[in-house]
Amino acid sequence: MSYFRPAIDALRGYTPGEQPQAGKFIKLNTNENPYRCSPAVDLAIQAALRSGLDRYPDPLANAFRLRAADLLGVEPDWVLCGNGSDEILTVVMRAFVDPGQLVRLPYPSYVLYKTLAGIQGARSEEVPFEADWSLGPRFVAADDKLRLALLPNPNSPSGTVLPKARVLELAEQLDCPLLVDEAYADFAEQSCVDLVARSEKILVSRSLSKSYALAGLRFGFVVAQPRVIAGLAKVKDSYNCDALSIAGATAAIDDQAWLAGTRAKILATRQRLTEAMRSRGFRAVPSQANFVWCTRPDRAPVRPIYEKLKQQRVLVRYMDYPGWGEGLRISVGTESQINALLSLLEKG
Amino acid sequence: MSYFRPAIDALRGYTPGEQPQAGKFIKLNTNENPYRCSPAVDLAIQAALRSGLDRYPDPLANAFRLRAADLLGVEPDWVLCGNGSDEILTVVMRAFVDPGQLVRLPYPSYVLYKTLAGIQGARSEEVPFEADWSLGPRFVAADDKLRLALLPNPNSPSGTVLPKARVLELAEQLDCPLLVDEAYADFAEQSCVDLVARSEKILVSRSLSKSYALAGLRFGFVVAQPRVIAGLAKVKDSYNCDALSIAGATAAIDDQAWLAGTRAKILATRQRLTEAMRSRGFRAVPSQANFVWCTRPDRAPVRPIYEKLKQQRVLVRYMDYPGWGEGLRISVGTESQINALLSLLEKG
Repeated sequence: MSYFRPAIDALRGYTPGEQPQAGKFIKLNTNENPYRCSPAVDLAIQAALRSGLDRYPDPLANAFRLRAADLLGVEPDWVLCGNGSDEILTVVMRAFVDPGQLVRLPYPSYVLYKTLAGIQGARSEEVPFEADWSLGPRFVAADDKLRLALLPNPNSPSGTVLPKARVLELAEQLDCPLLVDEAYADFAEQSCVDLVARSEKILVSRSLSKSYALAGLRFGFVVAQPRVIAGLAKVKDSYNCDALSIAGATAAIDDQAWLAGTRAKILATRQRLTEAMRSRGFRAVPSQANFVWCTRPDRAPVRPIYEKLKQQRVLVRYMDYPGWGEGLRISVGTESQINALLSLLEKG
Repeated sequence: MSYFRPAIDALRGYTPGEQPQAGKFIKLNTNENPYRCSPAVDLAIQAALRSGLDRYPDPLANAFRLRAADLLGVEPDWVLCGNGSDEILTVVMRAFVDPGQLVRLPYPSYVLYKTLAGIQGARSEEVPFEADWSLGPRFVAADDKLRLALLPNPNSPSGTVLPKARVLELAEQLDCPLLVDEAYADFAEQSCVDLVARSEKILVSRSLSKSYALAGLRFGFVVAQPRVIAGLAKVKDSYNCDALSIAGATAAIDDQAWLAGTRAKILATRQRLTEAMRSRGFRAVPSQANFVWCTRPDRAPVRPIYEKLKQQRVLVRYMDYPGWGEGLRISVGTESQINALLSLLEKG
């Protein structure tokens, strides 16, 4: 006998990537940034700590909104902050999708979307990417039940990007909001943020976990037109961002020099990793994110490679997409972490 | 034209108590703790900061769970942590209640519950407290649609408590889970945590915002039987508590001497505030929380009192419950804050 909603009982629950809490691993499995965050973040958090934690934080994190709005060329009421972009995804799902309705997403893509739809009691429809990682017309096909489309751009696990013009086209053809999940956009050559002014249907979410090396702080945000932001704000918890994360996140986006330097290092290592994996017999998709998706053109099983690396204390993400295939998604670590990985993979 | 769910469009949204971000107010309106948190919290957060924010936090905040379980006499899998007990309430609502179903709560009580039910597309049924702040049989009346009952204990705004035996009785008679919201229980003479072992229907939520002076940190948790915790865990965001809040919250509950000392100060001031308000012509309910609910037995309007105090830079919470009446909910501040308030209220 269960008191849970049937949708919850039916749910397996999302399993995040392994987060070993003890022991020494070279951790290349959950796309964290291998570098320490900007020193300005530490200082801002220490200052916030000194001013005390006894008061509730600003419900809208206006300090961050003002700064982010400046940076992105929008007004502050175009920005809503969240407890990681995970919370943004949850709020968007709860705002637009009722039980029994339909959510559309590409395949293979970020597995969490399906879980979030499942919690909401909604169905998910997965539209396969084409062989060149583009999306065909099925992604915008009319459906009475369709209430939300989700597009990670750059995509995970592929690291590929749909061009901005194509994203706008998809949004215009869809009869529902399109959330462009830009968790990895700081590593890409483009962002869709400026499309938000073109269509109320476009929402762009961002995360500070990856590019700003703040996965432990939990801070993300979404950019959308003010009416959309106002509706989403009704759904979020009142005090969803804590005082330390607001201070840290604001300092982080204020230090664009740190971002540029870190990005350059990661892009250089990404290029080297891509080439080295190819020379070791893998197919490696050109990535615009901080990871590289590696498959075997000869269809040799890759799970044993993941297992062997794990035994040798290097964690990468093994992914098996039913009906599509398997691969290793390798986060771009430091040069020496990637050297360690590569030395464990025999040269092909 | 709106893409939002009709339930969201229909929602006014919850308005939290005023949180002035600038200017100097004596802030007695949102039940924050007037004292600084334990110094152990600062040290733990600084240590977590030094070990870096680049990695994702522990999805289940096991460090806290272990310590809380010890303190409460349960096993760690009886505890689920949240981004404030607000998130716990949201997760519980999403876990048990589908659109069109029914949530039951007492009246007058914590206004947020209705908003959370509204976001979920559910109806709320408010059962009025009796004149002595007890709850009659209507609270447990059978209803096919009933999926969750919420009981703040101590209640807000009254600060009153239903005895443990009565809570157990209610849970046994209800055909749905009963969430006992113990946000203020550290200021009370009892807790219902040990009832959880008696019934899978009882969930007890706790907050570190008030008693541990950590409103700015966002940390709360729920105690329930392991099957219930496992179901709730499927609904929460994967990394819902950040690394700094896990460290700070764990240090906070580890310092029970700090809690005992702070509690003693607040209870003494509460007693003095209660008596002083009575001598100024108010009816003040004996409180087991860190606030006192003050009404006027002569039915004189209290809103002007709130307004005048605000002009004089003392914020209390004015509350007007339709069909029930209005009052001032005054948080227990420091002795000197309460002196300042009392000197502004003419002696009756």
